[in-house]
Amino acid sequence: MRKRHIYLSNMDFEAATELFYHETAQFFNAHAVEVVKVADSLDRITGEPVYGRLSSPNHNAAAMDGIALLSEKTQGASEANPLVLTEGIDFVYVNTGNVITSAYDAVIMIEDIIDVAPGQIQIISAARPWQHVRPVGEDIVAGEMIVPQNHCLRPMDIGAIISSGIENIKVLKKPTVTIIPTGTEIIQVDQPMKAGEIFDSNGPMFGAMVQDYGGIAKVLTPKKDDYELLKNEIKGAAEKCDILIISAGSSAGSKDYTKEILEELGTVILHGVAIKPGKPVILGKIGKTPVVGIPGYPVSAYFVFEAFVKPLIKTFLGQQDDQLQEVQAVLSKRIVSSLKHLEFVRMKLGYVGDQLIATPLERGAGVSMSLVKADGILWIPKTLEGYDTGAIVTIKLLKPLDQIKHTLVSIGSHDLIVDLINQLMQLDGENKGSVSSAHVGSMGGIMALKRGETHLAPIHLLDEKTGRYNIGVMKQFFPKEEMALIKGVGRVQGLLSRRETLAKLRI
Amino acid sequence: MRKRHIYLSNMDFEAATELFYHETAQFFNAHAVEVVKVADSLDRITGEPVYGRLSSPNHNAAAMDGIALLSEKTQGASEANPLVLTEGIDFVYVNTGNVITSAYDAVIMIEDIIDVAPGQIQIISAARPWQHVRPVGEDIVAGEMIVPQNHCLRPMDIGAIISSGIENIKVLKKPTVTIIPTGTEIIQVDQPMKAGEIFDSNGPMFGAMVQDYGGIAKVLTPKKDDYELLKNEIKGAAEKCDILIISAGSSAGSKDYTKEILEELGTVILHGVAIKPGKPVILGKIGKTPVVGIPGYPVSAYFVFEAFVKPLIKTFLGQQDDQLQEVQAVLSKRIVSSLKHLEFVRMKLGYVGDQLIATPLERGAGVSMSLVKADGILWIPKTLEGYDTGAIVTIKLLKPLDQIKHTLVSIGSHDLIVDLINQLMQLDGENKGSVSSAHVGSMGGIMALKRGETHLAPIHLLDEKTGRYNIGVMKQFFPKEEMALIKGVGRVQGLLSRRETLAKLRI
Repeated sequence: MRKRHIYLSNMDFEAATELFYHETAQFFNAHAVEVVKVADSLDRITGEPVYGRLSSPNHNAAAMDGIALLSEKTQGASEANPLVLTEGIDFVYVNTGNVITSAYDAVIMIEDIIDVAPGQIQIISAARPWQHVRPVGEDIVAGEMIVPQNHCLRPMDIGAIISSGIENIKVLKKPTVTIIPTGTEIIQVDQPMKAGEIFDSNGPMFGAMVQDYGGIAKVLTPKKDDYELLKNEIKGAAEKCDILIISAGSSAGSKDYTKEILEELGTVILHGVAIKPGKPVILGKIGKTPVVGIPGYPVSAYFVFEAFVKPLIKTFLGQQDDQLQEVQAVLSKRIVSSLKHLEFVRMKLGYVGDQLIATPLERGAGVSMSLVKADGILWIPKTLEGYDTGAIVTIKLLKPLDQIKHTLVSIGSHDLIVDLINQLMQLDGENKGSVSSAHVGSMGGIMALKRGETHLAPIHLLDEKTGRYNIGVMKQFFPKEEMALIKGVGRVQGLLSRRETLAKLRI
Repeated sequence: MRKRHIYLSNMDFEAATELFYHETAQFFNAHAVEVVKVADSLDRITGEPVYGRLSSPNHNAAAMDGIALLSEKTQGASEANPLVLTEGIDFVYVNTGNVITSAYDAVIMIEDIIDVAPGQIQIISAARPWQHVRPVGEDIVAGEMIVPQNHCLRPMDIGAIISSGIENIKVLKKPTVTIIPTGTEIIQVDQPMKAGEIFDSNGPMFGAMVQDYGGIAKVLTPKKDDYELLKNEIKGAAEKCDILIISAGSSAGSKDYTKEILEELGTVILHGVAIKPGKPVILGKIGKTPVVGIPGYPVSAYFVFEAFVKPLIKTFLGQQDDQLQEVQAVLSKRIVSSLKHLEFVRMKLGYVGDQLIATPLERGAGVSMSLVKADGILWIPKTLEGYDTGAIVTIKLLKPLDQIKHTLVSIGSHDLIVDLINQLMQLDGENKGSVSSAHVGSMGGIMALKRGETHLAPIHLLDEKTGRYNIGVMKQFFPKEEMALIKGVGRVQGLLSRRETLAKLRI
């Protein structure tokens, strides 16, 4: 069997991102531009400042529907002394936008004129010079900067640029990102699955992430673990794209060829970063093309892409790497993490009263559903062993906070009814919500309820004196409060809550 | 000349949006779906809940690179009592993801085995049953709901759905929005401009807005003001699209045919809403197709689209109309508004210390640059005559707040140097910023500087005793503070600032 390279670096996350950026930065100088129609340029980034070509308006124009006339002819008009004017001689009718020729210098609004006879009208106040006339260049003066370089084009920018007579503009080219899924057991989703095979889900996920961040993705069909075949694919792809992603094969297994191929074709900058999930990432380059070998587990794949590929795409497009919005929340459950790595924990959030409660989801790198369900991410630094229950932690949001207001927080024992409620809430049309559920045992739930940190506490506690479940503990811990205990026939588990909370939630 | 219909309704904004929604809501029932590849479904909205087709993983799988074996064979292994195992008999090598067949129930990590001879390895601790094995369905169980209905698909959703073996899904169809630009003087930007003509900039702006909100736009070439021609275009378009926009021609000029055509082909629900800009909007329907006649001024066009068309697109896509984020800011300059309408004022924002300062931009409906430059919008309700200088106002943000941190606030007299600084700041690469400039006269600037509401105050004040400009007033109002006055040779204007402010801004 082949030699295994089992020793990975454990470089700190910040150092690794900086090193990779430094080693691959030369290609960023490109900032290649291409010419596109302004009308098709939504969300593109300007490659140079855009200056007005023609003034807008390019002629003196009526700003109102009405009549155009020479203001000096209206002097002295008043209610006591109305002035009668003749069409074609004294005035012409104009609609908003019509040219005001040099014969006229003012517009009187249609509402302010009185028809007296065919072709004759009457006015009862004088017109100021240039009243209701849009002068040349009122909006844009030829030569004026409409938008600067490196500006992400919005609908109103497109409107302004076109109104100054510009049909095409230079925008930054989108980086092309080629994704090579690897693994003999990996098949495309349109293939029938044989035992031991798995679908390539990371390729399409990366493709969507590239699209989301403004690049052009090319997701290849999955490649078998064959050294020469992979080498040829990688060599060919690296020559043609701006950023190359090799999906899976980045670890230290006997079929993990990415590192050796990269050493043969280019440079391995780093193999292994102190993050969890995502440790066995490979950072390298072939020629000027940055290459990222991304571990195969879907959650690792997501975080490694976010950490190392997204900044490349954003830099290529001249943009700052936009950071996720952060909020403070109260931790519903203790989290232990290792001093060996920075850990990214997927979190569910929910409001109990005014408090935002954060609960960790499954932490396995293979559980892609933890990302689907997550409202945000908790970064646990390498220097910390975790956080205690009740700690105030900073969460990077994956969803807007107002989507979280329909979340029901459940802390306590594990109860299948809570999973059922979660399913029903997700189906509930406009009020679609979900349950944030922390399993900390019945007593943990009781304590969270006492602290006001949960809506529901699933409990399962026997009172040995009476032989009854849950009633005793409820009376013991909440002697003076109106509580509600929801239980099914014959069940020894129940859902405990303050009655006023249930009323508010309309359960 | 043709009859003019100059009487517009002045219905309140909220009543108008509600009426239009109510009158056109029947088409929303459609929620038509189409089938797309999951890999191409980024940002699409699910038309039904997505349930897992196959479990993921669909077999017991190695969770680590290493060896698969039967855990009971490892009992008793320890450092003192190492166990030697033979490849093919006791164990097989596995890579992460490989099938764990029914012959085995555990994986030992590659780091924990010692090679002793070809085909022979040694272990020094026992394996727990199912250690480092991912069981069937660890991530997704067949039949489990992956994402609910009406869910906007993100990269991680796409990954999870594909990993459960789903190739195609039902998503809501994008609404088709046809835009008919009208006006004999309107030409496309690729045409040479003759006197009195203007480019159709609203059509492409609407097209970009439709795209931005998730619809499919079809922008027609501009149509001349010809009743029969327009009627045929409108009739044909209304039959084929989900939402119809008629750009310009919505007012009461002699060539504004939209209302009459709509009365002939369908229903006019409302003509005229109490908003500024945007009053002469026409809301109607032809068959089931909502029709919005949007005034031609670019700023009116933008606000009318936002108010009446965006909610239709969002509702068609089963989404809530997402609201702009709001912030509180201090008004740098008095704004007077009429009690006749709700007014949308474009605002420039800037931080002076911790205070967010809001300054109104040009208010003309024809100044599209006011939208390009705006950081946010101030809604002045119909019930208010405006706000005084220093009032705390609520601004709906058009840009993220962190883009505003590079804004320099200038309040005072008008000085061309400030415009020059604005141009230079926009060109300044990563630190790209701009100037928020309120012209309130020199004394207004001095007062704003005293209140700590501006970085710079352009001033132009003669001290009659000395015959010198600006020095006297600076000493009079800031006797104890270190101030800086920037002036050019021979200029009587100067830029006044606190010295510490300039130091912080690195000017």
